[in-house]
Amino acid sequence: MIPVYTREQMEAVLRPSDVIQAVEEGFVAYSRGETVVPPVGELLFENPTGDCHIKYGYRTGDPSFTIKIATGFPENAKKGLLTSNGVMLVFSSQTGELLAILQDEGFLTDIRTAAAGAVAAKLLAPRDVEGIGIIGAGTQGRLQLEYLKEVLPARKAMVWTRSRERAEAFRVDGFEIQVADSCSGLAGRCRLIVTTTASRQWLLGPSDVHRGTHITAVGADGGGKQELHPELFSRAAVRAVDSRKQCAQFGDSSYALQEGRIQIEDLVELGELIDGKKPARENDEQITIADLTGVAIQDIQVAKLALRRLMARKDFVSN
Amino acid sequence: MIPVYTREQMEAVLRPSDVIQAVEEGFVAYSRGETVVPPVGELLFENPTGDCHIKYGYRTGDPSFTIKIATGFPENAKKGLLTSNGVMLVFSSQTGELLAILQDEGFLTDIRTAAAGAVAAKLLAPRDVEGIGIIGAGTQGRLQLEYLKEVLPARKAMVWTRSRERAEAFRVDGFEIQVADSCSGLAGRCRLIVTTTASRQWLLGPSDVHRGTHITAVGADGGGKQELHPELFSRAAVRAVDSRKQCAQFGDSSYALQEGRIQIEDLVELGELIDGKKPARENDEQITIADLTGVAIQDIQVAKLALRRLMARKDFVSN
Repeated sequence: MIPVYTREQMEAVLRPSDVIQAVEEGFVAYSRGETVVPPVGELLFENPTGDCHIKYGYRTGDPSFTIKIATGFPENAKKGLLTSNGVMLVFSSQTGELLAILQDEGFLTDIRTAAAGAVAAKLLAPRDVEGIGIIGAGTQGRLQLEYLKEVLPARKAMVWTRSRERAEAFRVDGFEIQVADSCSGLAGRCRLIVTTTASRQWLLGPSDVHRGTHITAVGADGGGKQELHPELFSRAAVRAVDSRKQCAQFGDSSYALQEGRIQIEDLVELGELIDGKKPARENDEQITIADLTGVAIQDIQVAKLALRRLMARKDFVSN
Repeated sequence: MIPVYTREQMEAVLRPSDVIQAVEEGFVAYSRGETVVPPVGELLFENPTGDCHIKYGYRTGDPSFTIKIATGFPENAKKGLLTSNGVMLVFSSQTGELLAILQDEGFLTDIRTAAAGAVAAKLLAPRDVEGIGIIGAGTQGRLQLEYLKEVLPARKAMVWTRSRERAEAFRVDGFEIQVADSCSGLAGRCRLIVTTTASRQWLLGPSDVHRGTHITAVGADGGGKQELHPELFSRAAVRAVDSRKQCAQFGDSSYALQEGRIQIEDLVELGELIDGKKPARENDEQITIADLTGVAIQDIQVAKLALRRLMARKDFVSN
């Protein structure tokens, strides 16, 4: 029988530092063209509204390939169910055999997104960040802090979200957290800001963001979503993206491109920054942005890592 | 935990007559436009050569949707492994939750193809077929006979395949089987012929096929594969297909279209025949063809049926 692993088992074996490294290597491979990732498959549902996305591919030379199936059904919340769900399948690229089913319920997607935030901060955060600003107080906001802890010494954070109550309830181990009155207030105090919302209009405007700030925007992972005012892209010294191609289609960069505020050549991929092919932040006065829409190579890298760690645990009975 | 069902469990619960009915209903829904089936996802591998295809979708109004992942690695044979493999996942289209994993190793694909052959024979075989001709003596050849047994009284068959030894070893319960010396010889004796090979050039030529014969061709399920001479399509009174759109791209019909021997309007879908929208065979003198390339709705229908039957078996411990 094929091993089926649970979310809890993955939570037990995956260390943030390893996930960050796997995602970092994935971005490099992606930007070097050493990945095979076909267009995303999609199914849409009405009544109730829902969607299913199929992302799949492999890193050239890998002995495995990965298929990730993620569903989103917003109305699940009313039924007391998770609104997003997922499963990843890892197959041998030598024989086509199914090697394992990672019944992660979206956990691997959550952490690969958090890991990308950490990769961006390593490259682009100014020196001596004192407070980290988190916009959006959900699972991803919490994970961003947990992963930033691995790469930055800052242990103070400020949070803003639409519901004051949810902001007050936001806790992350090891962080001293304050609630901000507004996005603008938060941006006045934090030199590293991560936006993690499902917003469909910008939350951070050009006058909100101070010199020497880095912003990582992870919320705009599909058409119609937006967190940053396009003018921020004109002001930024570095406009990093996970995928130039994908961020030109959606993500915050796409609005700046559509409005002609920047050109596609102005976007630099994280993989190029890691590889030293393009310059990252040059001083503590620059504004920098990382627009992260999520790419399949992150899923592929994290699935491989998870499977390696899970298989090493002989005590995990699978099936 | 999500239930994971094995091939053996599916073999135990699926009756050919039910599978044929499910596939028949699927063809009707497909031809009425009552299915949602996006383009097939594909990954190709070299060293060793292999492929992975992702077919997915649902029938409008279904409470579930299905994703089928099928891999083919021809060099597996040398390693003593199955050359084709597969898994189907059934999800709720109400909540996006994964309902079950059907670890069918390609079994559901095999039987949905056999069931399509039976559907075609019901509609297009001449009356009083005495002997059934099977070209290609593999799993699909055997299943075609097992499924034809449900819809035709004929219990004699003739088989041809490249290896005489494999042809001699071909056995199907309830059938008296003779080995043919050639495709032409087989076509001279059988008024119902099913081709089930991986051939890349035609096996049945225009002079081989006698009046009153129906041919079902199931082998040409991808580009470059061919079993029937294109001229047979000019001679046929009915050129049935599972999907007009897909058969125009590959399948035996595509060659006849490319050579201008027939027009796309000359192709009629099985769903239209079942629905009575187009005429099937009119007499026992006509030549008819069914070119079956395999469509996702067949997988969807069979996966739903399998899951219904599997869940009814309380003794099946899943996981």
